[in-house]
Amino acid sequence: MEDGDPTLRLRIFDLNCWAIRYLSKRRQERVQLIGDMLRQDGFDLVLLQEVWSEQDYSDLKGKLRGCYPFSHYFHSGVIGSGLCIFSRFPILDTLLYQYSLNGYPYMLQHGDWFCGKSVGLIVTKISGIIFNVYVTHLHAEYCREKDVYLPHRLVQAWELAQFIRHTLTAADVVLLGGDLNMHPGDVGIRLLRGWTGLRDAFAEAARFEGCEDGCTLIPNNCFTAKTELLPFPQGVRIDYILYKAISSVTVKCEELKTTTGTAPGMDIPFSDHEAVMATLHIQRQGQAVGDNLGTAEPMLVDVVTETRTEVVVGLRAAQRQRYSTGRMAVLALLLLLLQAVAALGALAGLVAGQPFPKLSFSLLAFLAIGVLLLATGLHLFHTMEVKMLQGTEEQMRMALRALQERPSDG
Amino acid sequence: MEDGDPTLRLRIFDLNCWAIRYLSKRRQERVQLIGDMLRQDGFDLVLLQEVWSEQDYSDLKGKLRGCYPFSHYFHSGVIGSGLCIFSRFPILDTLLYQYSLNGYPYMLQHGDWFCGKSVGLIVTKISGIIFNVYVTHLHAEYCREKDVYLPHRLVQAWELAQFIRHTLTAADVVLLGGDLNMHPGDVGIRLLRGWTGLRDAFAEAARFEGCEDGCTLIPNNCFTAKTELLPFPQGVRIDYILYKAISSVTVKCEELKTTTGTAPGMDIPFSDHEAVMATLHIQRQGQAVGDNLGTAEPMLVDVVTETRTEVVVGLRAAQRQRYSTGRMAVLALLLLLLQAVAALGALAGLVAGQPFPKLSFSLLAFLAIGVLLLATGLHLFHTMEVKMLQGTEEQMRMALRALQERPSDG
Repeated sequence: MEDGDPTLRLRIFDLNCWAIRYLSKRRQERVQLIGDMLRQDGFDLVLLQEVWSEQDYSDLKGKLRGCYPFSHYFHSGVIGSGLCIFSRFPILDTLLYQYSLNGYPYMLQHGDWFCGKSVGLIVTKISGIIFNVYVTHLHAEYCREKDVYLPHRLVQAWELAQFIRHTLTAADVVLLGGDLNMHPGDVGIRLLRGWTGLRDAFAEAARFEGCEDGCTLIPNNCFTAKTELLPFPQGVRIDYILYKAISSVTVKCEELKTTTGTAPGMDIPFSDHEAVMATLHIQRQGQAVGDNLGTAEPMLVDVVTETRTEVVVGLRAAQRQRYSTGRMAVLALLLLLLQAVAALGALAGLVAGQPFPKLSFSLLAFLAIGVLLLATGLHLFHTMEVKMLQGTEEQMRMALRALQERPSDG
Repeated sequence: MEDGDPTLRLRIFDLNCWAIRYLSKRRQERVQLIGDMLRQDGFDLVLLQEVWSEQDYSDLKGKLRGCYPFSHYFHSGVIGSGLCIFSRFPILDTLLYQYSLNGYPYMLQHGDWFCGKSVGLIVTKISGIIFNVYVTHLHAEYCREKDVYLPHRLVQAWELAQFIRHTLTAADVVLLGGDLNMHPGDVGIRLLRGWTGLRDAFAEAARFEGCEDGCTLIPNNCFTAKTELLPFPQGVRIDYILYKAISSVTVKCEELKTTTGTAPGMDIPFSDHEAVMATLHIQRQGQAVGDNLGTAEPMLVDVVTETRTEVVVGLRAAQRQRYSTGRMAVLALLLLLLQAVAALGALAGLVAGQPFPKLSFSLLAFLAIGVLLLATGLHLFHTMEVKMLQGTEEQMRMALRALQERPSDG
């Protein structure tokens, strides 16, 4: 499309690539397949998550240089954010926002904490229209019935919505792609959509082709954990492309597609997630379109209130853990002091006779030191968690007050 | 001033309060003094840093409720961000951005790492004019000659500038107050001002009253460390109020004041820093004023290049530390393996005869485990540091390319 042409057709690709070194099955093969397909299929913007190995990113970058000359990898955390974007159009600027909460460092089996979950933003200009393109990956849901990570994921959804709201105003169009780890009706999605006014490409699409209900985690994919999907025989939809027009521009979703298990013409899928592919039709308008910031206010009040309730539940749990780890640290310290007193007593009174077996005495001391250090670390961590949950809860209270005080000032 | 009146006079107060529990001298007394003065003196916006104790914040909030009915404390890190804002006008929204680097956890004597340095943003609307008010505190400078924290502070200055640039567009006026820990000519200040277009209230002020050259850390203050100020007999200026008009508004600094050691009418200063107080004159214009994003481009290229060079120096140092901590971890692991082999050999071959003294053997093993854990932790930390420095360096390279490719598109 030429500069100045009032309509623009944009093809966007989004995929959680599941490319974790040493852990993801047939990783290198799949990354190659993804690269080949992206080169053949000519999208305009490619938003990827879980590209944890920078080598994989470099390989993709090398392979895609011809058709996607611009790209950005968002660095964060020990391993990286896993987020990257490939683009046919120049990337003018980037910004990374790290979520303040992201699970627990001691939940090693759920390595989320180490991966520095964040939201990446690139700014690009296509045919004179400025796009803010966000890519993100929220904390995974490991057990839907008893989801201990829900408060953290909701803090992330809130921070994501706030980050988008505060950074979108220079843009004409906002695009968000990523693995949000939330089902379409979940409170976090309703919050995100209500608070930002983003539209769901799946719900808005004129044409759809792919898995039933747009699911992106399906039993039909040979890499998905079948037991987790037992309650959802068709699968779940947790990967999204969302969009919003800000100024004198309209955006419509012409078509949405997902992959359906195996990659087209291959014997394996690209990932354990299905890819989401949207074709957007963007049209410049004569006059500015009203910037409708989201859902009607009474509904927005409900959804913020619901989120706040969940955050408060998380806050109570974090306060309990802060208390119990603090108590553990104090007990370990007391044990150490007791041992020190006993040792001093032994040294002063009966240097010859040894009342304690040296080895078990020193082992006990080391154990106490270990528990003390661990419990102190955990106590500090949960203190931080409490502060962040409190801070978010306060922000939501402020938002609710603002919503309720000015019901007509949408 | 009435809504609709085209001019507005705004009084802003900024102070690093040095209110660290147990560590800061005469803390409670000084916090009380600060509260009394703020209540008497009737500013419009009060930006405070280093209010580390939430109790102090609550006390101030209680005392200032009458004249500053709106306030916000920015939670972050274990202790909090220390940042808070009091306002005569409703706070409509808030956002906190945490810097990705902030010193080293093992530099306990320079506790910066634990304090979660960040930038807080509040949005407020005064007489129909939207203000984005930022408050921040960058990493301290402990030794100007050999400033190992310079790369971290420059990453923070860059992230601060990027955060402001991406969030300012909905505002009519941008205000930034805080302890930037940089002298006026330092590369980080030049970067921040050049990249955002913020103006220095001290340099622009029509009238000035206070310490010579606007210094905010002066030998005349009984709480400052005199040895650190030896090279600067007049003191240094590291606390700033910066501002910028975005849309159809002009901002002028009518007056800038600083405190001068002791608080007016008292025998002690408010803090070890001097307070900065600006009176701004804000006028609505008929038509939009060109949004000049900062310094002329050739100068901007120079300052970004200079910053990038310093970031690369930091990157090299971080890479060296990542390597040496990794080597240390491997050595500790080898020692442990060696011990395990020896112990197994002893168990298998000569169960009766004990070739090693048990106590020193187990102490050595515990030592090796300790070193292994510590070195691994540090290795992970420096890996993260390397990633963040690399990421910033890449962003700066992208910015330079954009600046150089479009020299006329300021």
